[in-house]
Amino acid sequence: MQRRDFLTTSALGLGALSLTGCYKEEDKKSININRGRKVALKLATSWPAHFPIMGTGVDDFASQCGKLSGGSLEIKVYPKNILVPALQVFDTTSLAQIDAFHSGVYYWKGKNSAFSIFGGMPLGLTSEEMITWMKFGGGLELWRELYAKFNLYPLIGGSTGPQMGGWFKKEINTLADLKGLKMRIPGLGGEVMKKLGVNPVLLPPGEIFTSLERGTIDATEWVGPALDSMMGFAKAAQYYYTGWHEPGSILEITFNKNRWEKLSNEHQAIITSATEAMTGNMIHEFRYKNAKALQELPKEVQIKTFPKEIMDSAKIALQEVLEKESKKSEDFKRVLQSYNEFTALNKPWDDISTKNFLEIRG
Amino acid sequence: MQRRDFLTTSALGLGALSLTGCYKEEDKKSININRGRKVALKLATSWPAHFPIMGTGVDDFASQCGKLSGGSLEIKVYPKNILVPALQVFDTTSLAQIDAFHSGVYYWKGKNSAFSIFGGMPLGLTSEEMITWMKFGGGLELWRELYAKFNLYPLIGGSTGPQMGGWFKKEINTLADLKGLKMRIPGLGGEVMKKLGVNPVLLPPGEIFTSLERGTIDATEWVGPALDSMMGFAKAAQYYYTGWHEPGSILEITFNKNRWEKLSNEHQAIITSATEAMTGNMIHEFRYKNAKALQELPKEVQIKTFPKEIMDSAKIALQEVLEKESKKSEDFKRVLQSYNEFTALNKPWDDISTKNFLEIRG
Repeated sequence: MQRRDFLTTSALGLGALSLTGCYKEEDKKSININRGRKVALKLATSWPAHFPIMGTGVDDFASQCGKLSGGSLEIKVYPKNILVPALQVFDTTSLAQIDAFHSGVYYWKGKNSAFSIFGGMPLGLTSEEMITWMKFGGGLELWRELYAKFNLYPLIGGSTGPQMGGWFKKEINTLADLKGLKMRIPGLGGEVMKKLGVNPVLLPPGEIFTSLERGTIDATEWVGPALDSMMGFAKAAQYYYTGWHEPGSILEITFNKNRWEKLSNEHQAIITSATEAMTGNMIHEFRYKNAKALQELPKEVQIKTFPKEIMDSAKIALQEVLEKESKKSEDFKRVLQSYNEFTALNKPWDDISTKNFLEIRG
Repeated sequence: MQRRDFLTTSALGLGALSLTGCYKEEDKKSININRGRKVALKLATSWPAHFPIMGTGVDDFASQCGKLSGGSLEIKVYPKNILVPALQVFDTTSLAQIDAFHSGVYYWKGKNSAFSIFGGMPLGLTSEEMITWMKFGGGLELWRELYAKFNLYPLIGGSTGPQMGGWFKKEINTLADLKGLKMRIPGLGGEVMKKLGVNPVLLPPGEIFTSLERGTIDATEWVGPALDSMMGFAKAAQYYYTGWHEPGSILEITFNKNRWEKLSNEHQAIITSATEAMTGNMIHEFRYKNAKALQELPKEVQIKTFPKEIMDSAKIALQEVLEKESKKSEDFKRVLQSYNEFTALNKPWDDISTKNFLEIRG
């Protein structure tokens, strides 16, 4: 089409219009009250400055909040240890010493074991399924109810997508190969591995590579090809196992609840929309960068899948872990029940849609 | 934690701070220039008013734009045939008679055969993969370049997630069972089916059920359990086949390009963020409502998967269709090349992550 045609075409005779104005007048009023009042918030993260995907994701989120609000909402991002130590962001926000944080939900199971379920479940839901449970299956309401006891208000702040099972110095062919293995693996995945004979070890990120290289540990999980490549694990371990223990880890942008409630409706809407956009973008970025990094792994790396014997045992071990936690905590039991109800609803559909399609595609 | 503790806790000694202000001063300036000027846009859709998921999704998008902009951006949604006929929204927006539309990209292959690839590919990428190709693999740039020739600027405006293969009155066991079958199936999927001996039929939505019930057609595809249930297909056909031809159909919110370029940076950012949030929300809503509707299908309905023989033939037929289109159109060839490059990058990663995980999960 020529630009000239475009400019000279006359308007349609529109006739009588039945408008579906989706914008309500009362919303407009409540918004305008707060417009103009500038709000500055401090947000601390558990990642180094501009850390790929997670760190740059929260940078973009903050920048978006500024743009969307016409400059009235300024979120200052403080990388880990600048204002607050990486694993103190929960307490510091709870105490209103900062306004918000960006982190992984799996870090807070010491506060309440039920929180580990909001962070993701070994052998459980994928990112898309986790978010669907949160939004439509009651997960988010439960999360907010339990975080409210800490004066916190959580929003989904991204997801890593499916993670890999980890780097092993020796090939794993049978359950016996796992016995006594020292592996850096945290969370519920670590507890399952422990039941299979592994000795789960916790190490700060800066010490993992050296420990693996020197043989102080025999294996480590981290995230996926994109972030694992930066750690150099391929130089210290040859066998890279596919994932089972973190199929859909959820990250969070969590506010001090009193601070959240004092924000205008408009700023709340902006933050909510920006986190939703951020979550999709992070999943897509992880997919792309994992695919790229996988292509560029050294040739010596062998991609392996755990034998069925091990995964079957892991499923049994997981149920034992979940039963034990349910007996210890009413909260855990209640969140697990909601999670299981959604899983039961979701699985028949996923089996005949995504799973079936990926099999057909081959 | 007690509220009293929370209120009386003293602030941290924060010490010297190294701030990473992610908000740039120049952004703020450009935003404030346009603040206060109210913009009203007309957006027409190809769906009935408040049509489930797609229609309510665009309603929410419009409402969000109002909220995020503090009332300065008002998008009025016109359902199909109110202002513009359902399939005239492309031309009407191109001619600047309205400002924008919400529709499915697959409708416009008559304008340029390459557009069908942006709408989704039989046996191809899932929604998450399509969006990753768009954002990181060059798909969106190509889409915008080709739409610019029509004075249009497209944004991803949701996705249906994986669709079902359709409702059949008779069971399909061999390729021979497809010969001469009359099926309502549009797009590239229809062309593939044609090569397998099917007689693809186009019918307006209002006529599909009656045609199926009376046997004027033998089969029809539509979307998935949530929307198919509303059409009552289960009363007219017993065999419900799993999907292969629309694994990740992309919807669009597309603007008249001149109108888009005249919007302030802030309104562009608001619309972009709102479409990104909308896209995630729609995929999650489809997943949840499809799972619910599947559970509630009449017991007589039998879920079936096409035999491998048929899917193998469909893959060969698809390649023939794509080669033919590539010879006819440089645009089609170029978009297909970009799509194929991303597919080649993505598949090894998807095979060892999502696909492998769903197999392990069982």
